[in-house]
Amino acid sequence: MAKSFMDRLRAPESPVNLTKLSTDAHPGVSSKDDALKALPELGERLANLQEKLFAQARGGSEPARNSVLLVLQGMDTSGKGGTVKHVTGVMDPGGVHITSFKAPTEEELSHDFLWRVRKALPGAGQIGVFDRSHYEDVLIVRVRDLVPREQWEPRYGLINEFEQELADQGTTIVKCFLHISRDEQKERLLARLDDPTKLWKYNKGDVDERKLWPAYQEAYEAAINLTSTVTAPWYVIPADRKWYRNFAITNLLIETLERIDPKWPPADYDIDVEKARVLSS
Amino acid sequence: MAKSFMDRLRAPESPVNLTKLSTDAHPGVSSKDDALKALPELGERLANLQEKLFAQARGGSEPARNSVLLVLQGMDTSGKGGTVKHVTGVMDPGGVHITSFKAPTEEELSHDFLWRVRKALPGAGQIGVFDRSHYEDVLIVRVRDLVPREQWEPRYGLINEFEQELADQGTTIVKCFLHISRDEQKERLLARLDDPTKLWKYNKGDVDERKLWPAYQEAYEAAINLTSTVTAPWYVIPADRKWYRNFAITNLLIETLERIDPKWPPADYDIDVEKARVLSS
Repeated sequence: MAKSFMDRLRAPESPVNLTKLSTDAHPGVSSKDDALKALPELGERLANLQEKLFAQARGGSEPARNSVLLVLQGMDTSGKGGTVKHVTGVMDPGGVHITSFKAPTEEELSHDFLWRVRKALPGAGQIGVFDRSHYEDVLIVRVRDLVPREQWEPRYGLINEFEQELADQGTTIVKCFLHISRDEQKERLLARLDDPTKLWKYNKGDVDERKLWPAYQEAYEAAINLTSTVTAPWYVIPADRKWYRNFAITNLLIETLERIDPKWPPADYDIDVEKARVLSS
Repeated sequence: MAKSFMDRLRAPESPVNLTKLSTDAHPGVSSKDDALKALPELGERLANLQEKLFAQARGGSEPARNSVLLVLQGMDTSGKGGTVKHVTGVMDPGGVHITSFKAPTEEELSHDFLWRVRKALPGAGQIGVFDRSHYEDVLIVRVRDLVPREQWEPRYGLINEFEQELADQGTTIVKCFLHISRDEQKERLLARLDDPTKLWKYNKGDVDERKLWPAYQEAYEAAINLTSTVTAPWYVIPADRKWYRNFAITNLLIETLERIDPKWPPADYDIDVEKARVLSS
């Protein structure tokens, strides 16, 4: 049996060294052509599983509580937005809850760092997607010294507790680090500056962050090492090739949902009685 | 030049009589085949316009404030959810804000009826989609006497003022009544009861509402007559054919966005300076 994408892409148990992990490999599929050929059928499977997850939380006498949370992290231009568009494009938007986390507002800063994250969690039956997440609080916050070490250091443990709590309540967490190379980021930033339809996506600040590349990679390594748990493992997605990134994350979601194995809920009413009522109405 | 879908589908200025308006016509396209053939290109146009609307609210030195609000109303099974799935499926989910209004909570009931609606409005650059809306407060509320007439009757005027306020702030409102026949609803309810993957979509209460069909049609007519304004006209969509419903609303959105005519925003930075910064980073 073919190795699962979960197995192929799970962050290693030994401390991760990102420079040693390929950004342009394509484990699990031999070519772009093969991936693109497989995508329509994968999209249908994903859509079907998502609808079942949604349905089982709504129908029957004992609605299920399961939900999924996809967390996307990565450097600027690594493709978080593109991934959201691709993987949620096939799903019913009614069952998907997307949150794009920006720099925290004054109000958000006045609360615990998980406050805004809790408000954005998927409800039963939903697939939540985080474009950036609570991990920013141990990434940019750490790299840029936005709070002192005594504040960010305990967050790794707090995040693990938080994610365990979510898992206990029925949320399966899929954390993906979109791993691009520094050269690929340069290409993508230049492409934005060369295309009149993409100028608005460019921010001067992107270069300032880029200059801190090694510090960010170190912060990502720490996050992956300290928060990749059995409950909520990190997946490192080679993301220089957009087609592979989409293909891999679609497969990860399918495998995740197949493990949850949602079922169409039975009727919590008498079908024949209801048919008669409809017919006579 | 072909008549626009806006012109074809806009509710008549004279008082509307829904029984006289076809539920299975397909104005503007001669066959299902033709509609399905046109949809991929229409989808691309819609996606492109939506991205531009989003972009112009974010880039440049004077970001635009325009947004769009698509309001979907119709009897149970009329296809509100299917429409949301279809028309938003082609768009970037980051620029779309979907709200599905359920029976109001205690907290919502303790506020003015527009309170929860205001919280769900699209921000600048966004396309908001309401699956049900503030119109429920003059539909089920009126039919079921949920509040006394003295309370619901002034709401038509309040809604017109509210929608004018939104328009003044840059929101273009597209209100669609998904018009299905009573027979078509019967078919769709029976289909749910015949399909194990759809049992969860059926509610016993649907038949209770169905029995009030004439009262609902009357309430819809009143809503359309009293709130179809130049600012925010109602469109009556023949919705017995799902392909036509999707085709028509896709076209309405395209025409709406073409009138807004969003533009890719110019850079609010010096492109050459930034290229040099990226190259040297």
